[in-house]
Amino acid sequence: MRAMDESGREGATLAPALSSWQGERMGRDLGCGEVRPEHVGRTLTVAGWVHRVRDLGGLRFVEVRDRTGRLQLVINRAEAPPEVVQAAEGLRAEFVVAARGTVRRRAPEAVNPRLATGEVELVPAQLWILATSKTPPFELDAAAEVDEGLRLRYRYLDLRRPAMFRNLWLRHRAYQVVRRYFDRNGFLEVETPMLTRSTPEGARDYLVPSRLHPGRFYALPQSPQLFKQLLMVGGIERYFQIVRCFRDEDLRADRQPEFTQIDVEMSFVDVDDVLAMAEGMMAELWQELLGVEVPLPLPRLTYAEAMARYGSDKPDLRYEPVVVDVSDVFVQTGFRGFQAALASGGAVRALRAPGGAALSRKELDALNETARAAGSPGVAWIAVPEPDPEAWRGPVVKFFTPEERAALAGRLELRAGDLVLLAADEPERASVVLGKLRLQLAERLAWPRVKEWAFTWVVDFPLLEWDEEEQRYVARHHPFTSPRDEDLDRLESDPAGVRARAYDLVLNGYEIGGGSIRIHRRDVQERVFRAIGLPPEKARERFGFLLEAFDYGPPPHGGIAFGFDRIVMLAAGASSIRDVIAFPKTARAVDPLTGAPAEVDPGQLEELHLRIQQR
Amino acid sequence: MRAMDESGREGATLAPALSSWQGERMGRDLGCGEVRPEHVGRTLTVAGWVHRVRDLGGLRFVEVRDRTGRLQLVINRAEAPPEVVQAAEGLRAEFVVAARGTVRRRAPEAVNPRLATGEVELVPAQLWILATSKTPPFELDAAAEVDEGLRLRYRYLDLRRPAMFRNLWLRHRAYQVVRRYFDRNGFLEVETPMLTRSTPEGARDYLVPSRLHPGRFYALPQSPQLFKQLLMVGGIERYFQIVRCFRDEDLRADRQPEFTQIDVEMSFVDVDDVLAMAEGMMAELWQELLGVEVPLPLPRLTYAEAMARYGSDKPDLRYEPVVVDVSDVFVQTGFRGFQAALASGGAVRALRAPGGAALSRKELDALNETARAAGSPGVAWIAVPEPDPEAWRGPVVKFFTPEERAALAGRLELRAGDLVLLAADEPERASVVLGKLRLQLAERLAWPRVKEWAFTWVVDFPLLEWDEEEQRYVARHHPFTSPRDEDLDRLESDPAGVRARAYDLVLNGYEIGGGSIRIHRRDVQERVFRAIGLPPEKARERFGFLLEAFDYGPPPHGGIAFGFDRIVMLAAGASSIRDVIAFPKTARAVDPLTGAPAEVDPGQLEELHLRIQQR
Repeated sequence: MRAMDESGREGATLAPALSSWQGERMGRDLGCGEVRPEHVGRTLTVAGWVHRVRDLGGLRFVEVRDRTGRLQLVINRAEAPPEVVQAAEGLRAEFVVAARGTVRRRAPEAVNPRLATGEVELVPAQLWILATSKTPPFELDAAAEVDEGLRLRYRYLDLRRPAMFRNLWLRHRAYQVVRRYFDRNGFLEVETPMLTRSTPEGARDYLVPSRLHPGRFYALPQSPQLFKQLLMVGGIERYFQIVRCFRDEDLRADRQPEFTQIDVEMSFVDVDDVLAMAEGMMAELWQELLGVEVPLPLPRLTYAEAMARYGSDKPDLRYEPVVVDVSDVFVQTGFRGFQAALASGGAVRALRAPGGAALSRKELDALNETARAAGSPGVAWIAVPEPDPEAWRGPVVKFFTPEERAALAGRLELRAGDLVLLAADEPERASVVLGKLRLQLAERLAWPRVKEWAFTWVVDFPLLEWDEEEQRYVARHHPFTSPRDEDLDRLESDPAGVRARAYDLVLNGYEIGGGSIRIHRRDVQERVFRAIGLPPEKARERFGFLLEAFDYGPPPHGGIAFGFDRIVMLAAGASSIRDVIAFPKTARAVDPLTGAPAEVDPGQLEELHLRIQQR
Repeated sequence: MRAMDESGREGATLAPALSSWQGERMGRDLGCGEVRPEHVGRTLTVAGWVHRVRDLGGLRFVEVRDRTGRLQLVINRAEAPPEVVQAAEGLRAEFVVAARGTVRRRAPEAVNPRLATGEVELVPAQLWILATSKTPPFELDAAAEVDEGLRLRYRYLDLRRPAMFRNLWLRHRAYQVVRRYFDRNGFLEVETPMLTRSTPEGARDYLVPSRLHPGRFYALPQSPQLFKQLLMVGGIERYFQIVRCFRDEDLRADRQPEFTQIDVEMSFVDVDDVLAMAEGMMAELWQELLGVEVPLPLPRLTYAEAMARYGSDKPDLRYEPVVVDVSDVFVQTGFRGFQAALASGGAVRALRAPGGAALSRKELDALNETARAAGSPGVAWIAVPEPDPEAWRGPVVKFFTPEERAALAGRLELRAGDLVLLAADEPERASVVLGKLRLQLAERLAWPRVKEWAFTWVVDFPLLEWDEEEQRYVARHHPFTSPRDEDLDRLESDPAGVRARAYDLVLNGYEIGGGSIRIHRRDVQERVFRAIGLPPEKARERFGFLLEAFDYGPPPHGGIAFGFDRIVMLAAGASSIRDVIAFPKTARAVDPLTGAPAEVDPGQLEELHLRIQQR
């Protein structure tokens, strides 16, 4: 083997060293990070990457790193075997080495308390260079600040950082915990097809041209929704799968074209059964991954409550303050702004922001910009340095009567240092705007957290929502979601008022799961199809095989799907799902490492009966 | 809900019954198949599918089936509540029902010893019809004989058969055992991308057009080969994944366009390490799934031995007889056929077929047809009713000297009733032909099996093989497979003679896994590329990102991939991998259930910048 690598460094001669190490059994005795004072005096073989090389007098210190941690080798140029000295001289960062030698205790002044192996070092009697390395394009120790494009381009170097290894290790643990949980609960892991037919999830499908069937295409699944329902029709009764799903969307910051889902479906169940099973999984995950006990059952908010109090269907319950309706306080107000909103069916809603009285005028103006960006005419603010209303400051204070002020103070339980934000608007929008400001202020004012991990269910979602573009109702989840029994009568008369047997699981303001009880009665299914403007023949064209399956004894069933990447991201404390995916894609759906997507051979396209459309 | 389904049956009124069951908590107390005499006197709720309805006098017997088994309900028309009687009257096969009632012991004459629940029955106080069913298009009890196309078209009905549920259950168990094994051994489960770039596996890729990048395509992975090697470069050290892979091949009988692989890679290892880890997994699987103890270590055959003795690189070791070289016996033979073969560098090889002396002339002729179909000029046969050569029969016997006969009898240890097959041919082809006949005769003559589960490793595969079409050597596995150190010198002088550090795992004549130690030295890699006619610049064009990764300290590494579908098929005793895949495709890569692949909207193609090529 060439002793000089492309970066021009002269390395040691590799071939003989490599072969002689292969001649022995390659198993290492211990991981680098596992060597401890108890091993002092033992002869061990370790292997890994050169993390750092330092010289001190006649000594060369080589820190070797593997996935377990780092160990210091010490080569005394005067005492070590000449081959070892020679090999050590050639070492540079990220070379791969193996060493066999004796563990000894470090001198007291050389102990490094920041390393698990900091009390010991290895004196190699043999040292093999297994591979050389060019100088990495970024410092592995400083990769956190490195441009993410570069990290993805050289992902194999990025993965050598302990933080990335820890993320992948956590992800590994999460897979095992989830599967053990469902296995123990009688669920069958079933794989569903990747080469399938479009599912009605609403997003764009990735298509796969068929070579054997010209002009025809498979679609990669957006979720195994229809297959898991078919498995229920097939009597599997309890199904789960950790499964790759695909959506060809215009990617937002934290989406990936392929993502991983924990997919679950159960037969002969109602909402409570699915929720109990799902929250049991989350509690077990948090216990096993983080040692955190999650008290069960998890709280439940209805969609209506979540929207009113948090202005969001993914409320962040780590912070106590919520949006409060104070319309009744101002029902006879003389303040024009509130009068107008209330007269037109709107509401006045308020948010108490602890500590907000200290905000500067400039910061208060910034809040109003956020509000206006969210479609609001603006929010009014009141600074409350003291609970006494006489001390209140703010442009609107003068319009409120003493009774209104007292009622507001009582309702919001105002305390010294609070800021009050008031939005007079269409009721939902008032909450949405104050909900956005709530999150912004929680961060800015470093609100104390009621809990570190705030799980909540959001239930009773609307079954349908009005689609302005299509001028019709569309299914909010998907058209197989069951309405609540007691709302069934209103499916035709008040479609927007019908609640679904649907639920989302929210953690710290992130939606981490969602599902529903499905329709298994044909009459209900046909009514829902009509409500979304889908006549039976169209429905059969789109969902024919599922509807046909429902002709043959479908059991009552329901399920849930969790966003696995996002759950691992939250558990890992990572700021992006890309940090918990081994080989993610960029926001442009490109893999900078492999260069995918790439051009292909014209011959391949011809076999697929395709031509690229020139524009 | 309509009380009459499309098949024209009048069912019971569904809606009220369904709601009232939903009103209670839906959880069943026990599975149908779990009810036992110990439950007599208890009130239980069960649910499932109507398996069979029978009337006897004033009694109606309804057998209800769920995934745990079957339970008999008894409705006495004179005594049961009228709603129960009414609901029971409407029942037909595959209706979905729930029943709440009291368990009682069957009358002695009604006990059914073939059912686990055969000593008990349930007397329903309540009976709800949860869904109706059309008459299934095939009898579920007789589905084994049903046309497979129909079974796949109505897979959800096919899955209700206990045999299919058992297969999926076994598959579920296999996933869990495999993952627990690797988890326990320090492997990290890592997901690799599905939307990626072509891998150099040789088969055709499935392509996925990119919408954001006109004219560019992702490829679905044929295996995660390159990614798992990148994970090793990234310091993961031990990786596994149960992963979907894709090959757009012209499908043979038991291939699927998408299939599942247990993918494994390890760093700092040699062949022995990978084999020990892999066979440990198989032993644990067989222990856990079947209660079968597999003695370890597994036997190893070199490729050369396997080809010589079994005429196959996937030898079926369940049967003792092997192909034996008897060229030396006939070195001075007067028999022209053998003379000619030996003179031109060929061999004479023999197979002893116990019990074969009893074959008819017609059957012997059929053997010769098999031989000729395999490219042989034909085989000679000798029937051995008695070991005494005087008793031998067969057209060639007369050409052999007494010494030749005696030597043959001794070498093959002939016994009464044997048949001897002799092939004089190019040595490998002689073995291949006799190897094929060996398997045919093992089945025809019902040879006793030395063991039920015959695992073997085949090692030391040739690194390269000559490609007639391309007129060059190609990599037998893939171009990253490491040659054996001791053969490295011959890479240029005798390419065909270089053995690889590659291995296959074979079970009962099926290849169930294969892998290799990879090249991690650039000099070796470049020599292998040259040997297969790939100059460095071409290699970099095709495998650039992996080669670049190898510039940054690749550890020595190797791995293996198992065919998961096939392993489960063998464990389940199924005859096709389709029987252990929930939703398989046909040999034409079609899913008869969903109709995939299907035509798509012209708008979708336009977004993908594609046109279908008219022929």
